[in-house]
Amino acid sequence: MTRERLFLYDTTLRDGQQTQGVQFSTDEKRKIAGVLDALGVDYIEGGWPGANPTDSAFFEAVPATRARMTAFGMTKRAGRSAENDEVLASVLNAGTAAVCLVGKTHDFHVSTALGITLEENVENIARSLAHVGGQGREALFDAEHFFDGWKANPAYALECLKAASDAGARWIVLCDTNGGTLPHEVGRIVGQVIAAGIPGERLGIHTHDDTGNAVAASLAAVEAGVRQVQGTLNGLGERCGNANLTTLIPTLLLKAPFAGRFETGVTPEALAGLTRASRLLDDILNRVPLKSAPYVGGSAFAHKAGLHASAILKDPSTYEHVRPETVGNTRIIPMSNQAGQSNLRRRLAEAGIEVDKDDPRLSTILEEVKAREAAGYAYDTAQASFELAARRVLGRIPRFFEVKRYRVTVERRKNKYDRMVTLSEAVVVVKVAGEKKLSVSESLDAEGNDRGPVNALSRALAKDLGPYQAYIDDMRLVDFKVRITDGGTEAVTRVIIDSADRSGRRWSTVGVSANIVDASFEALLDAVTWKLIRDGAPIHDA
Amino acid sequence: MTRERLFLYDTTLRDGQQTQGVQFSTDEKRKIAGVLDALGVDYIEGGWPGANPTDSAFFEAVPATRARMTAFGMTKRAGRSAENDEVLASVLNAGTAAVCLVGKTHDFHVSTALGITLEENVENIARSLAHVGGQGREALFDAEHFFDGWKANPAYALECLKAASDAGARWIVLCDTNGGTLPHEVGRIVGQVIAAGIPGERLGIHTHDDTGNAVAASLAAVEAGVRQVQGTLNGLGERCGNANLTTLIPTLLLKAPFAGRFETGVTPEALAGLTRASRLLDDILNRVPLKSAPYVGGSAFAHKAGLHASAILKDPSTYEHVRPETVGNTRIIPMSNQAGQSNLRRRLAEAGIEVDKDDPRLSTILEEVKAREAAGYAYDTAQASFELAARRVLGRIPRFFEVKRYRVTVERRKNKYDRMVTLSEAVVVVKVAGEKKLSVSESLDAEGNDRGPVNALSRALAKDLGPYQAYIDDMRLVDFKVRITDGGTEAVTRVIIDSADRSGRRWSTVGVSANIVDASFEALLDAVTWKLIRDGAPIHDA
Repeated sequence: MTRERLFLYDTTLRDGQQTQGVQFSTDEKRKIAGVLDALGVDYIEGGWPGANPTDSAFFEAVPATRARMTAFGMTKRAGRSAENDEVLASVLNAGTAAVCLVGKTHDFHVSTALGITLEENVENIARSLAHVGGQGREALFDAEHFFDGWKANPAYALECLKAASDAGARWIVLCDTNGGTLPHEVGRIVGQVIAAGIPGERLGIHTHDDTGNAVAASLAAVEAGVRQVQGTLNGLGERCGNANLTTLIPTLLLKAPFAGRFETGVTPEALAGLTRASRLLDDILNRVPLKSAPYVGGSAFAHKAGLHASAILKDPSTYEHVRPETVGNTRIIPMSNQAGQSNLRRRLAEAGIEVDKDDPRLSTILEEVKAREAAGYAYDTAQASFELAARRVLGRIPRFFEVKRYRVTVERRKNKYDRMVTLSEAVVVVKVAGEKKLSVSESLDAEGNDRGPVNALSRALAKDLGPYQAYIDDMRLVDFKVRITDGGTEAVTRVIIDSADRSGRRWSTVGVSANIVDASFEALLDAVTWKLIRDGAPIHDA
Repeated sequence: MTRERLFLYDTTLRDGQQTQGVQFSTDEKRKIAGVLDALGVDYIEGGWPGANPTDSAFFEAVPATRARMTAFGMTKRAGRSAENDEVLASVLNAGTAAVCLVGKTHDFHVSTALGITLEENVENIARSLAHVGGQGREALFDAEHFFDGWKANPAYALECLKAASDAGARWIVLCDTNGGTLPHEVGRIVGQVIAAGIPGERLGIHTHDDTGNAVAASLAAVEAGVRQVQGTLNGLGERCGNANLTTLIPTLLLKAPFAGRFETGVTPEALAGLTRASRLLDDILNRVPLKSAPYVGGSAFAHKAGLHASAILKDPSTYEHVRPETVGNTRIIPMSNQAGQSNLRRRLAEAGIEVDKDDPRLSTILEEVKAREAAGYAYDTAQASFELAARRVLGRIPRFFEVKRYRVTVERRKNKYDRMVTLSEAVVVVKVAGEKKLSVSESLDAEGNDRGPVNALSRALAKDLGPYQAYIDDMRLVDFKVRITDGGTEAVTRVIIDSADRSGRRWSTVGVSANIVDASFEALLDAVTWKLIRDGAPIHDA
């Protein structure tokens, strides 16, 4: 049986940007586009060129993607031609292969929000979409408030869709903009639109989660015939978010009646990278991953109930509707650390640490890691620190040097020109190869501006490590993430530091403390120690 | 038209307890029962008496509730009578008005997980439910894995339901235990069960969110005829959680085709307490409320997109599917670089700052906000700092005091017991009412542990502000968030501080700098200044 093509349209970079608290930088947008492209979506909506400096900068140097890069904008305004609408011109000037224009289809909005006649609105839609097609671009019409519009005035809503369709739009996207339409209504109305003459192969669905039904409504629309599904990674988006593609993709690929019915751009290998993609997005945005997220959440395959856990050991299909590895997630059985131990051995082997299958220290490492995670450490990302934690239990960690003490001072006061300036200074005292070394550093960048206490500390620590200096001279601190997290009884600060060296190698370390300076120093120390081990530095008595 | 009775069954205290990371104390269970009872659910499933010490203690002193308190347990085991099964006896001994017993209905589980014959299982169900009824209790049968069971062997699954029904169970609850059944299948199968002779008035639905469809599947079941809906507050529960009652209740009461069709125990007044109930649960469990939660989330009625915000100002129904006040939530029009002047004026008016519609300073404020957001500030959360930024442009900000300088020191060294300890100390120098004041603070909590440089700074700043001291004495720092973000050309640190005072008021401020200490100090200063303005502190020349 030939499989029908189902298209996935991602709007993380546009509608996802409307999430409260989310503010992408241009660089973050580029990184996210890369994540989406690797996942295999068909369209990446990059933003609205001209609407804000970040989006404009993104489209000035659009990353090359396999997916069709799409610029978002709105249909031309009344009283001017499509050619002379400068808002529309900015969108087209971005030069993307596809252009999606939002327009009204609900009569109430045309009069209330736009304040123009119903005819003018239809004309704006037709002219704008024709203009996009005339420029050789793939045109998409985003029918805002379509479901409410259809409920209020189906003839007019349909007239708007037909205007876009007749003007050559490749896709007509039915939007439930305020998220208020329930799934069975979405399914019914999509059926009626198809019956009215717009084929499902030209229809898309765009839903929001205001009743917790964005995913179900999208599935109902696919059941009814639409062949483009819009959404965002991790369900980012305005108010309660958009339809969550991280949930929809595995459902469409793995679950009856959808599994096997459609061809999409997502390969089984890409699907197995879904959990990683979801975490990567959270990482870029410095958000805490939602544990209960379907398929990709840290709890999605965690079997806490005793009855469940014992049945899972007999046969995982007893309590799992899909296999966790198909989406790159892992099963967690808190009751038994059987599964945990084989996992751990694999991770250690990856780091070049071989441990015997029956070594009792395996369970000691597991307990240590669990205890530290409960205290706020995060070893999922900080691989290098995980490795060091395991080595400590195994007694395979050399003591290259000893930190005797350190002190950081941040002082803000007036300079001689009567301007307030800040200066950070750090002193680190280490004992290395029998010798005590005091190092002091300020924190000033090339322009003479202060870069803060952690920077000063990092410089002082790496300033003079005696015989080890040659090993760490090419180390750079490339990223620094801070999060306030739960440390058991009190809030603590977790610092994750990414380091790199000339060889292009990157590694991550973690530190946790109520004091951000201490947490940072712990992560810095781990970063140095990891590199000394990896590069086989000799041991001198501290 | 007579409205049909729809029953709400809450399992927060039983299935919600299976949430990874959630561990109720007996006292917490009592508090949550109170929240549920005030909301107006019909049944509160309190736990499994005998399964663990917490649940047993809860049932030893069950709180008095209007809702029917229900004990959960499992059908008797094979090879003994219902009267002689001590697990079942513990459940009945709790003395609750209602008892819900889980049993298998999926043939595969009967053989694989229980290892008994299909007939024995049917017998266990019948005898157990009859025993509950014989004790004068309301009996409920929780049909585990029912949907998978029906798909595999409908005749057997139905036989199990009928056994419970014939034994006098008031309710037969159809469970999608592994969360894998999609809404349309749930609707179809419920219809088939009703057609096979078990009336909808005796059927309940219990779903899980493993495909993000728990709410939709519950609604599909209600559409198909079930008259009891099970779920948890905030969607707590095993793996991805149970059907979220916080979402289902307003949908059933406010949204077509359900609104007005059913009588439930939830009054409009209780519904208006829904957001508070949701936050209260998070508060009891020390969880961060999910901003994107439907109806009750902090972002559920936040309109960030500029186009949306301006339409909302004309008519809220343009972008809101229900009115926020019906569920006790509030509309938020955050500031962001997407927002326009109309939304700005509205924000200012809410803060008591009236600005004329044609005042040219409106666009100056907007540009200032945009420029600061490009530099790393985030005003959609930090409303108090936004307000101060606007006041600065408008020249409506008093200078209560002047910070002359400050210094923070973090020192880590050995104490007299040869243990490494950290001490943070801050000195702040201000000029207030013509007087220079030097304040110094350490940062130690009740146990004598260091809480870091920001804590020390906050204490020193709030130690002696002369005539303003009385205004800020009741201020507390309640949350502190840090992220590294893009500050234009370089990475900067953004700090957001939440403050509160005795009146219960909470406000958020933001600071940005390459130096985390400076960023924190900026946010702290804003927090103090905002409170002085709001509380009408008099101005003394700095």
